[in-house]
Amino acid sequence: MTHAAQYAVQFSDVQEASALLQGVAHRTPTLSSRLIDQQVSERAGAPISIYFKCENFQRVGAFKFRGGYHAVARLSEAQAQRGVCTHSSGNHAQALALAAHMRGIPAYIVMPSSAPAVKRAAVEGYGAEVIECEPTLEARERTTRDVQARTGAHLVHPYDDPHVIAGQATAALELIEERGPLDLMIAPVGGGGLMSGTCISTRALCPQALLWGAEPEGADDAARSLQAGELIPQTGPNTICDGLLTSLGQLTWPIIRDHVQQIVTVTDPEVIEAMRLIWTRLKIIIEPSCATPLAALLKSPPARPARVGVILSGGNVDLDRLPW
Amino acid sequence: MTHAAQYAVQFSDVQEASALLQGVAHRTPTLSSRLIDQQVSERAGAPISIYFKCENFQRVGAFKFRGGYHAVARLSEAQAQRGVCTHSSGNHAQALALAAHMRGIPAYIVMPSSAPAVKRAAVEGYGAEVIECEPTLEARERTTRDVQARTGAHLVHPYDDPHVIAGQATAALELIEERGPLDLMIAPVGGGGLMSGTCISTRALCPQALLWGAEPEGADDAARSLQAGELIPQTGPNTICDGLLTSLGQLTWPIIRDHVQQIVTVTDPEVIEAMRLIWTRLKIIIEPSCATPLAALLKSPPARPARVGVILSGGNVDLDRLPW
Repeated sequence: MTHAAQYAVQFSDVQEASALLQGVAHRTPTLSSRLIDQQVSERAGAPISIYFKCENFQRVGAFKFRGGYHAVARLSEAQAQRGVCTHSSGNHAQALALAAHMRGIPAYIVMPSSAPAVKRAAVEGYGAEVIECEPTLEARERTTRDVQARTGAHLVHPYDDPHVIAGQATAALELIEERGPLDLMIAPVGGGGLMSGTCISTRALCPQALLWGAEPEGADDAARSLQAGELIPQTGPNTICDGLLTSLGQLTWPIIRDHVQQIVTVTDPEVIEAMRLIWTRLKIIIEPSCATPLAALLKSPPARPARVGVILSGGNVDLDRLPW
Repeated sequence: MTHAAQYAVQFSDVQEASALLQGVAHRTPTLSSRLIDQQVSERAGAPISIYFKCENFQRVGAFKFRGGYHAVARLSEAQAQRGVCTHSSGNHAQALALAAHMRGIPAYIVMPSSAPAVKRAAVEGYGAEVIECEPTLEARERTTRDVQARTGAHLVHPYDDPHVIAGQATAALELIEERGPLDLMIAPVGGGGLMSGTCISTRALCPQALLWGAEPEGADDAARSLQAGELIPQTGPNTICDGLLTSLGQLTWPIIRDHVQQIVTVTDPEVIEAMRLIWTRLKIIIEPSCATPLAALLKSPPARPARVGVILSGGNVDLDRLPW
């Protein structure tokens, strides 16, 4: 038995997030491919239909805009005046910078000195102030505390924040609204913001659906945590899935623990194969992290007929450094 | 004055093609990008909105499915029994092979021995018979005649065929149906099947719209023909736009001559820049030929506010040999 009341996020929060995102976030399309379905069905020995929710088409190129915008929208006027801050070199940094820009408030983004210049430029392009730090977790957290002390800015954590989780949950909500009841929903797991939000929406709208996570073998803290029944932080991640390096959070872990039946782990070569399959068949650009759910479906497909929802998380990839 | 009756294709043919393609071809989405609009608007000095019709999401990955399917659908039962043939190593080959497969009739595809193995495999995957020949136009035409003599198959020309032109025209038809009246429509020009069909649909549905073609400098027969007022065949094409190497045809040329105001020619580096912009901003995969219209808009944008339709022709690109 799960007890919804014990979680940081309720489905009513997701519905509020959805209303706030209306007309602001893109309502991204869901795509299918006969040939991908065929390939997974052959391995499953049963007909499988996959609906890909294309968050690579979302603003800033990733689902992260949903959570970032929602968190900023929920600030009081007084909080908002002092701005927002976070530490991230990835999609959350851009998402928060754009959301702050849209509300006309300051954003302070702590980024490691090792972050690619193009990512820094994108954040600055939205008018955010970038504060550089050493590329260690300790330095990032310390620098972020310094920024908060100096500015009074509100910290929007990349995933361990109820408004962020509720925002990310709207992707699964839209997918189910568009395609009807599903038998299985699957999302990538990094810090667990997308996965935990996906759990809340799916459980509310398709109570019978299975919930799976997909994780790279080189950053498999969720798989190990689920097996152990307790939160085991990730140390020394090693994978091309640069969006999935982080550990589960205090808010995301209990939701995942109670709702997710299995975390399928996949190797980097399996991720690359799935990524190429999506590029080739759907003709869309996705980043490696985003290919983990299809890699998981190809590796351990459901053993009976299933309508499967897959959240394609983002499309921000360096076209000069493709992994094949 | 143009006299519609003199052309090989009327708008009523396009409407028939559209009815036959209903539920068979994908009704592909049209996408937009704020950032691409901004970039073109800055160069234009006027607000420009671009609607990209995504035929890279079409079956076989290109608009060619429309024309190939329509040509096969219009065969009499007796003709169909003997099958269809063509010479092509590109998207038309796959389109005709799939269309024949769907009708359950034979397809004979003459391909140069230099064609990539993956393209040959794709055609054979649809059950078509591939006949190899030397990689010269003379050998292709002779081999095709031999195949026709042996089998009695009906030749479906890649572009100089009324049913093919009417099929390709349905892409522009759908774009205008979805996005309403446009001020300018622009498509790539190779043999002119897509361009001439686009002219027929656009002239019928938005009589005031400008019609432009986009062509690589290294295969600029349409630009030179339009300037000279007579059909000048392409010799020795040299461009990365492998879908645009051919000369205009006897049927496509008069339609283009009478409807197209200008052919903008672009260099390969300009094509690559536009291709990357679409990959990066729209997160979709398009082939080089397909990027010529955006390259043309960036090079010589309309000088006043305009709603612009762009036909994105296809997405079949070798991921191991990207041009950057």
